[in-house]
Amino acid sequence: MSFLDRIKKCNNVDDLSKFIPFVVEGARVGWIHHEFCHVLKKFDHIFEFFEKKICLSPQLLTYQERTMAIDRVVKFLAEEGWIAQRSDELYPVSTGYYATPFFEMDRSAISRFGVSAHGIHINGFVSLRNEIFMWIGRRADDKSTYPGQLDNMVAGGQPVGLSLLDNILKECAEEAAIPPDLARKAKAVGSITYQYEENNCLKPDTMFVFDLELPSDFNPINTDGEVAEFKLLPVSEVMSITANTTAFKFNCAAVNIDFFIRHGLLLPENQDYIEIQRGLHK
Amino acid sequence: MSFLDRIKKCNNVDDLSKFIPFVVEGARVGWIHHEFCHVLKKFDHIFEFFEKKICLSPQLLTYQERTMAIDRVVKFLAEEGWIAQRSDELYPVSTGYYATPFFEMDRSAISRFGVSAHGIHINGFVSLRNEIFMWIGRRADDKSTYPGQLDNMVAGGQPVGLSLLDNILKECAEEAAIPPDLARKAKAVGSITYQYEENNCLKPDTMFVFDLELPSDFNPINTDGEVAEFKLLPVSEVMSITANTTAFKFNCAAVNIDFFIRHGLLLPENQDYIEIQRGLHK
Repeated sequence: MSFLDRIKKCNNVDDLSKFIPFVVEGARVGWIHHEFCHVLKKFDHIFEFFEKKICLSPQLLTYQERTMAIDRVVKFLAEEGWIAQRSDELYPVSTGYYATPFFEMDRSAISRFGVSAHGIHINGFVSLRNEIFMWIGRRADDKSTYPGQLDNMVAGGQPVGLSLLDNILKECAEEAAIPPDLARKAKAVGSITYQYEENNCLKPDTMFVFDLELPSDFNPINTDGEVAEFKLLPVSEVMSITANTTAFKFNCAAVNIDFFIRHGLLLPENQDYIEIQRGLHK
Repeated sequence: MSFLDRIKKCNNVDDLSKFIPFVVEGARVGWIHHEFCHVLKKFDHIFEFFEKKICLSPQLLTYQERTMAIDRVVKFLAEEGWIAQRSDELYPVSTGYYATPFFEMDRSAISRFGVSAHGIHINGFVSLRNEIFMWIGRRADDKSTYPGQLDNMVAGGQPVGLSLLDNILKECAEEAAIPPDLARKAKAVGSITYQYEENNCLKPDTMFVFDLELPSDFNPINTDGEVAEFKLLPVSEVMSITANTTAFKFNCAAVNIDFFIRHGLLLPENQDYIEIQRGLHK
């Protein structure tokens, strides 16, 4: 096991030809697995099927119409067990983060349609005696995704209609009881992009990464039940756990590794240094 | 003009098929432009020519033999004006930074053979009144490459037989008269990889990036004649020059942009943010 192994895990798509483009108004907005196409055939008034792509019906003209039509599909997919139960979060469906979305889709279905998702990940750290300590969360055991795995201090998906700052304030409050004045000090330090495949679903994700240096007397407290516990660990221990175990949720490991590089803790002497950096921005 | 334009300038190779692989012991170590191949035909005891690759002759068995043979070619190329005059720096020729080199080649010929080169770039900065100021160098007007262009405080190629730290100490002394104890504080913060084409030469380069925070009373002074002058500029001005002009040497602009991102100065609100990050690690 190594840091590079963790990065490779995030980019585990060996063959994108297993997926076909999901297209709206001539633009690709996602990737759908060949084997999953037949499940959508039932909705031939919502999708148009071609050999090499699936298009959203051009009959669906407006944001509202498309959103409502897709929501019926999502409801069906949840009932049939193809996706998890509907969440309360809606994600934009577009050609990219800065493009105008065509419609919105429940978070639970995003990876089934291979739609690009975005999130915020905040490294919470404390500087003590010239050493860095990181606040690490452990995900609740009843969380639907990656239960019990280690996580960055605060992380969350980027839903429709919320600015990055508003999302930071919201997630900081929910996940770690960080007051707004402190949360606002989260510093944007980059983005990480990867393409992850799981159970014939595709996650072409981008994480906006933030560093938040916390006072030594601050203790994060979870308020929404999504985090089982927080621990303040010396960064050397976080490095060891990241490199040598799979305890961290796969994409949180990448956020850690990016932190180690930016803070001069993982050095060019590591023979995977260049490949790791490229793997963080696929 | 924009930050993204500067990143795209570093990755200006639209079509790698203009080049054919340069191969040693079955491994590709470089890329040679089709039109340049005929120049090497004179050396048919040193190279073997195939339709889709040029190989170093398998008769050349040792590091020493290969280095000497290639040096004869380099001498000829310099005399004929295909490359600049020989430098005093030898670069390793290998499949990657961490691989054992097959031989060494004068720096002046590296991009003619499309061999991967590595360098160190050090951002020198001062924190004054909660604002960052950067030390920016202007390259001497008689420098053979990119004369008069703006540069990072310290930068240099990574030659054979020198560790990164030794190179930092050497370049810091030569370019900016930074004493060893201060130079050692340069913090590794990442790498930037790009592929740049110029005059049928290919530069698949990697820059190891370092941040060096300097005391406010420190003034860099050039000692080797390669820097015309240093200026301490507010980072906002460096950002403006980087985005809106081509005053910076192309790859130094990328190092600046990486600095702006890591220091929370260039933000995700910039609609090129994700594409810029990916462009820094091609």
